[in-house]
Amino acid sequence: MAKLPSNRPEARTPRGFRDIDPAEIRAETRMLGTIREVYESYGFEPLETPAIEYTDALGKFLPDQDRPNEGVFSFQDDDEQWLSLRYDLTAPLARYVAQNFDKLPKPFRRYATGPVWRNEKPGPGRFRQFTQFDADTVGTESVAADAEICMLAADTMERLGIARGQYKIKVNNRKLLDGVLLAIGVDPAADADAKKRLTVLRAVDKLDRLGTEGVSRLLGTGRKDESGDFTAGAGLAPDAIETMLKFVGASAVDGARALDLIEPLVSGSETGRAGLAELRQIAELVASGGYDRDRIAFDSTVVRGLEYYTGPVFEAELTFEVKDEDGNIVRFGSVGGGGRYDDLVARFTGQRVPATGFSIGVSRLAAALRYLDKSEKVQAHGPVVVLVMDKGELPRYQRLAQTLRQAGIRAEMYLGTSGMKPQMKYADKRGAPCVIIQGSQEREKGEVQIKDLIDGAKAAQSITDNKEWKAARPAQFSVPEAEMVAAVKGVLARHG
Amino acid sequence: MAKLPSNRPEARTPRGFRDIDPAEIRAETRMLGTIREVYESYGFEPLETPAIEYTDALGKFLPDQDRPNEGVFSFQDDDEQWLSLRYDLTAPLARYVAQNFDKLPKPFRRYATGPVWRNEKPGPGRFRQFTQFDADTVGTESVAADAEICMLAADTMERLGIARGQYKIKVNNRKLLDGVLLAIGVDPAADADAKKRLTVLRAVDKLDRLGTEGVSRLLGTGRKDESGDFTAGAGLAPDAIETMLKFVGASAVDGARALDLIEPLVSGSETGRAGLAELRQIAELVASGGYDRDRIAFDSTVVRGLEYYTGPVFEAELTFEVKDEDGNIVRFGSVGGGGRYDDLVARFTGQRVPATGFSIGVSRLAAALRYLDKSEKVQAHGPVVVLVMDKGELPRYQRLAQTLRQAGIRAEMYLGTSGMKPQMKYADKRGAPCVIIQGSQEREKGEVQIKDLIDGAKAAQSITDNKEWKAARPAQFSVPEAEMVAAVKGVLARHG
Repeated sequence: MAKLPSNRPEARTPRGFRDIDPAEIRAETRMLGTIREVYESYGFEPLETPAIEYTDALGKFLPDQDRPNEGVFSFQDDDEQWLSLRYDLTAPLARYVAQNFDKLPKPFRRYATGPVWRNEKPGPGRFRQFTQFDADTVGTESVAADAEICMLAADTMERLGIARGQYKIKVNNRKLLDGVLLAIGVDPAADADAKKRLTVLRAVDKLDRLGTEGVSRLLGTGRKDESGDFTAGAGLAPDAIETMLKFVGASAVDGARALDLIEPLVSGSETGRAGLAELRQIAELVASGGYDRDRIAFDSTVVRGLEYYTGPVFEAELTFEVKDEDGNIVRFGSVGGGGRYDDLVARFTGQRVPATGFSIGVSRLAAALRYLDKSEKVQAHGPVVVLVMDKGELPRYQRLAQTLRQAGIRAEMYLGTSGMKPQMKYADKRGAPCVIIQGSQEREKGEVQIKDLIDGAKAAQSITDNKEWKAARPAQFSVPEAEMVAAVKGVLARHG
Repeated sequence: MAKLPSNRPEARTPRGFRDIDPAEIRAETRMLGTIREVYESYGFEPLETPAIEYTDALGKFLPDQDRPNEGVFSFQDDDEQWLSLRYDLTAPLARYVAQNFDKLPKPFRRYATGPVWRNEKPGPGRFRQFTQFDADTVGTESVAADAEICMLAADTMERLGIARGQYKIKVNNRKLLDGVLLAIGVDPAADADAKKRLTVLRAVDKLDRLGTEGVSRLLGTGRKDESGDFTAGAGLAPDAIETMLKFVGASAVDGARALDLIEPLVSGSETGRAGLAELRQIAELVASGGYDRDRIAFDSTVVRGLEYYTGPVFEAELTFEVKDEDGNIVRFGSVGGGGRYDDLVARFTGQRVPATGFSIGVSRLAAALRYLDKSEKVQAHGPVVVLVMDKGELPRYQRLAQTLRQAGIRAEMYLGTSGMKPQMKYADKRGAPCVIIQGSQEREKGEVQIKDLIDGAKAAQSITDNKEWKAARPAQFSVPEAEMVAAVKGVLARHG
């Protein structure tokens, strides 16, 4: 046997990574199953791509600097090619579509779920590995595909038990944002205006948090926050600021007429008019599908980061209120989002392939379900534990456990080498609803004792006298071995 | 819009990685669900650890060379610490147990599934990412835990539909192997004999492939294979070779009495006697559980690589025959294995924590189920496709698709912009059982046409005349919209 190393490593997870416990795994497994069912019903097909891709295929190789982007975990293969862990499920999809274009049905609907990795600074609740669940439709320009994604998202929320009124699929359009930017003299296609555009979009994105006043400052000369930190503004003129505020405020002023309110602001450009037309088509399609404005609606404040989107953008927001870390009442907020990205596949082929999709943040949505108490109560109890009273009788105890399992009851024989007390403690720690006890007396009579740990715990709270306890032995009873399964089922039924 | 890069990356998966198609994903998802159910019934709890661990925690940091083992994918974090992708699920479990020792119930049963990565040379069927499904029991020396793992493995095979007689859980014991090595003068604990021991174990491992004659050569002076390549032998003396051949041949000579046959060979050492006693206990426990020797049995040829095992070792073998790549008839072979490893947690804590476990190779087992035609026929057909005959009527077509979905039928509206013929081709490519057609005529009458693509394809084979085809329009019929769901269900029922 090898000697133990004198220099022992410390047992710890790497910075920004975490282990996931049984309750969370079970809840997520069920949740993912439900999402899968909804996506399948819409005709989406599963696809699994590897965790590792060539860095250049992910678009994360920086040719000017001849190395990968620092935001992704990267390493060199033995042939010197750079590999990276995927940072989302969209870039691998683009690679897959480019690689298999001819054999795919067009449009191609696929769903995928799995971990993604970000080489970023971890923070509270911000991990460097997390799970996404994506659905994308590739190969069609039709806004019916975007409308379908919105309906899919709404159906998913409801199938998970999130009630109508507790969620909203908010829709905007990058072309509309570009239209209003053009109207205030910022050219979204001009490199010179890139920084200004970014500052304006970031300001719009903060309406929820800062209100009109704050956004107005960020659009203008800048804003000092409570801590005294100053954020530089976009430097817009007062009338441009007014236009932007009208734009972002439209949904709040009159949701049903928001597109009409915005029309004069954006219809000066072809881009703006196209965005408007697309949103009206989406509105018509979802309305005719029976999805009213409480479920899917235009929202002029949705920006969706600063990514590769080229048309409609979506955000699934949970609208019920929770307390944040500082104790403030806030909306639960976004659990997923997406949009149309028409340029991703072209990176490989030069051929423009229109696509639209939606991505769910799995942990975040699971947290919402836990909060709403909608994660199914799976395995609320641990297994029934068969105690080992006599080590010479292991085969007998093992058979008792097997009998329970064959009757569909989760059960285990105690596998340690400790005595009665630690075994009871073990059963408690496992959350066992009851234990099976068979000492020599019971064995001779062909009986088992069943000790109900849940009733027992309740009884223990009301009995203070040790003697009284021993006399009453609450929640413990004997049955013939042949009746063990029925008796255990009775205990389980009693505790739901 | 950003300009396309002139230097486009090639769309390809990295060397040794692969995409997984829908049929395989669906079959594996079902298979993993069944395995999970069996493991849960035995009281195992799920655990999910991250894909990335500190290299030293995986035991893959080479301190003398101050760098990670080349067999794992590794990279440095921004604080210069080395990280690696896990290469199995056992090393992360050891890290988890060492990190959370005090709060875990002991013994601790956990199962886990997920991808693992090996930075090795890929080959046909050998990938650098693959999925494992592990169950381990940590914190008990009792061989009842090993016996339980064997029963768990047998139950899993049967629940997946592998019939009794088509699989065998083979059990051996490292202590027995050490015992016979001691008997022939090779000290398993002596560094000087390490190479010889390895050569002997490797030779034993090849009995299946090379037969007694070949193994005998490998134990002696060496062996030249058909291609003329020479493998050096262990250089054992003739009587030592005879002992080893008696040992490895015991199970074949008389399976029921194999342990008795081996007893005189190994009982000269304490290690050998301990191994024998453990195997007899396991045999008693599984027999009393009703698992006969066709399902779980001692097999003296099982070696299980050259890993960290310290006691009983297991191998799940599928015994039915298949053709290998060269057309030879061979047993399907191993789909999983494991054993007792008592030293893994001690790497961190210095404290010896006994453990035993079993790992399934997910793709390999899934391939076996496909071969046996036991993977459940999930989604044999694609979705029903609602054709778009009139682009102005998208909302109507979308509603038809939604009506089908709400009735539990997988359905999609065609989302492309092409005409009738490409749409029919699309439906074919999707494997649609039927399409829904509603032109202006049908719309005015409140009807839809249903075209059965499966019957249609059959009919097409028997009709050669185009005119005859047009007149008969086989497998195509009209129903009122209100009867669409029932009619489609009829089509689906007809094609099972």
